[in-house]
Amino acid sequence: MNAMTDRIAGVLVLPQPYVLFLGDTTVPGFAKTAFGLRDWAADKCVGELRLPGATVTTGLEALTAAEAHARGARALVIGVANLGGVIPANWRASLVEALEAGLDLIAGMHMRLADIPELAEAAHRLGRQLIDVRVPPPQIPVGTGRKRSGKRLLTVGTDCALGKKYTALALARAFERRGIDSDFRASGQTGIMIAGGGIAMDAVVSDFEAGAAELLSPDAAPGHWDIIEGQGALTHPAYAAVSLGLLHGSQPDVFVVCHEPGRTEMLGTAGYKLTSVEEIVELTLLLGRRTNPAIRCGGFAFNTSALGEAAATELMARESARLGLPVADPVRGGPAFDVLVDSCLA
Amino acid sequence: MNAMTDRIAGVLVLPQPYVLFLGDTTVPGFAKTAFGLRDWAADKCVGELRLPGATVTTGLEALTAAEAHARGARALVIGVANLGGVIPANWRASLVEALEAGLDLIAGMHMRLADIPELAEAAHRLGRQLIDVRVPPPQIPVGTGRKRSGKRLLTVGTDCALGKKYTALALARAFERRGIDSDFRASGQTGIMIAGGGIAMDAVVSDFEAGAAELLSPDAAPGHWDIIEGQGALTHPAYAAVSLGLLHGSQPDVFVVCHEPGRTEMLGTAGYKLTSVEEIVELTLLLGRRTNPAIRCGGFAFNTSALGEAAATELMARESARLGLPVADPVRGGPAFDVLVDSCLA
Repeated sequence: MNAMTDRIAGVLVLPQPYVLFLGDTTVPGFAKTAFGLRDWAADKCVGELRLPGATVTTGLEALTAAEAHARGARALVIGVANLGGVIPANWRASLVEALEAGLDLIAGMHMRLADIPELAEAAHRLGRQLIDVRVPPPQIPVGTGRKRSGKRLLTVGTDCALGKKYTALALARAFERRGIDSDFRASGQTGIMIAGGGIAMDAVVSDFEAGAAELLSPDAAPGHWDIIEGQGALTHPAYAAVSLGLLHGSQPDVFVVCHEPGRTEMLGTAGYKLTSVEEIVELTLLLGRRTNPAIRCGGFAFNTSALGEAAATELMARESARLGLPVADPVRGGPAFDVLVDSCLA
Repeated sequence: MNAMTDRIAGVLVLPQPYVLFLGDTTVPGFAKTAFGLRDWAADKCVGELRLPGATVTTGLEALTAAEAHARGARALVIGVANLGGVIPANWRASLVEALEAGLDLIAGMHMRLADIPELAEAAHRLGRQLIDVRVPPPQIPVGTGRKRSGKRLLTVGTDCALGKKYTALALARAFERRGIDSDFRASGQTGIMIAGGGIAMDAVVSDFEAGAAELLSPDAAPGHWDIIEGQGALTHPAYAAVSLGLLHGSQPDVFVVCHEPGRTEMLGTAGYKLTSVEEIVELTLLLGRRTNPAIRCGGFAFNTSALGEAAATELMARESARLGLPVADPVRGGPAFDVLVDSCLA
């Protein structure tokens, strides 16, 4: 990947490395993007940039914009959200300073960088880029269903926000450790920042959803694996369109079902009960066979963060025996996760 | 519906009645939108407007823009397409003249009216509207899956472009003849022009696809029916996201499967075989139950335009016996279609 945005090819490519902007944040939960970048793209982060009053830190070195640029940073990433997804007025002088120091700006918030006049003016004057990773590339083609070369793994889920990105990243890292030629393919904003590219699948016009997924994992060498970050759930009453377009266009050979034991209701719905993992396996096989008749389930990734170590291990062993496939928590890792990786590669 | 566009409410509402613009078209196949409006919205069409050289006619009275306005027309509809979906330079003077005569402009082409400087300038100067029916309304909410009151029927299909709009219109007309309180709900550009409103579901951002479908058929009286125009097919490798979002958000009580006997391959795909009608019934039940557990199949609408009368009748009778549900061709109508309507209302 080169250090520029290439919107012609249809997939966003971000300038790297980054400096992580934390604003004046005092709530760690608002800095999830910065923490995700520190955890999964540390080699692409030269440091952090905080404003007076900030108490949250990634633990990376605190730098000014000019210092970050001198260390090789090419972009400042807004690594913090706040209620409403806006960019507060008291951050803006620092963001203009970053543009003046030679950095592009990258954000994934609801408010667009280019809609803030002082940033738009400064970027135009300085020839810098304002990159909103939620904005999909133009000229996405309609899908064709043509079979592409190479291998693909897609993470799917019983709901939103329960570990599909984390699981894909952990699998990509495990594949890499085993010397397997692979790429993490990002389909959401934090994933795109980590990968340095991708397509925000939830922001694509529905007629082009499968076409965008086809672009996201192009033809590759026969032994190459794309590990694709899933979105939503096939049974989510709001987001199933995103999930199905991504499934059809990804043509996965293998999928891993992500699940949070104990969650009973779909996020943001009028009381919809969570679908069982078995139902998600069946639906994914049924619908996924349309574009890849050889699709199979590699196993399950459980988010057991609410459980203690012993309870989590016992639950996963029991569920693995019941389901006949590996169950592991990618955050806990360990031998169970190696078994899941073995199953995906089998 | 009032005679203005209301974009706040989330569903486009068009100014009516129309005058149908045919340009200088000599190819009847390019005037499908105009013919559809003549056939299904004759009471909303005051006449047609042709340029010198045109040989295609809808049979409606030829009028100038000023004459059309004097007869009550509120908008000129571009009822003709050409290769590439552009608005040729030699049409533009007439379109400006229509704006000057007091008409808004409505189009459903790929090229947007507002992107043509001379139209944008004239509309701005005259306070007229340029309405692209392919542009979905802003501020579409995310779906919730909340159960809405009233009854709903959705037309689904084994592929694109085989009669889902026509079937929905024919069913809506049949419901009306029986005195049933109902509305045709349009999800594509020609349907929107016929209905005078609706949402171009294929142009909605995928995260909001089900939410848009929820908007399209709002709460209604318990005995009221919405007859919703379907899109794509659940097994189409490019468009299934549109179909699933529309299915989930529509929460249909009844669906009718549209099919063209003899078609063997999905449109625009890399050789994908057409799905059988039984598979579409099963998939629609399986996925549709998520938002309406009482969903059922009302029967089948076959497009038998390639067959003679006797062969079509024989085929539909045989398929009806095999499938255990009514099969009818809404274009041919007749007793078989009445049986299909009975089944939908049962």
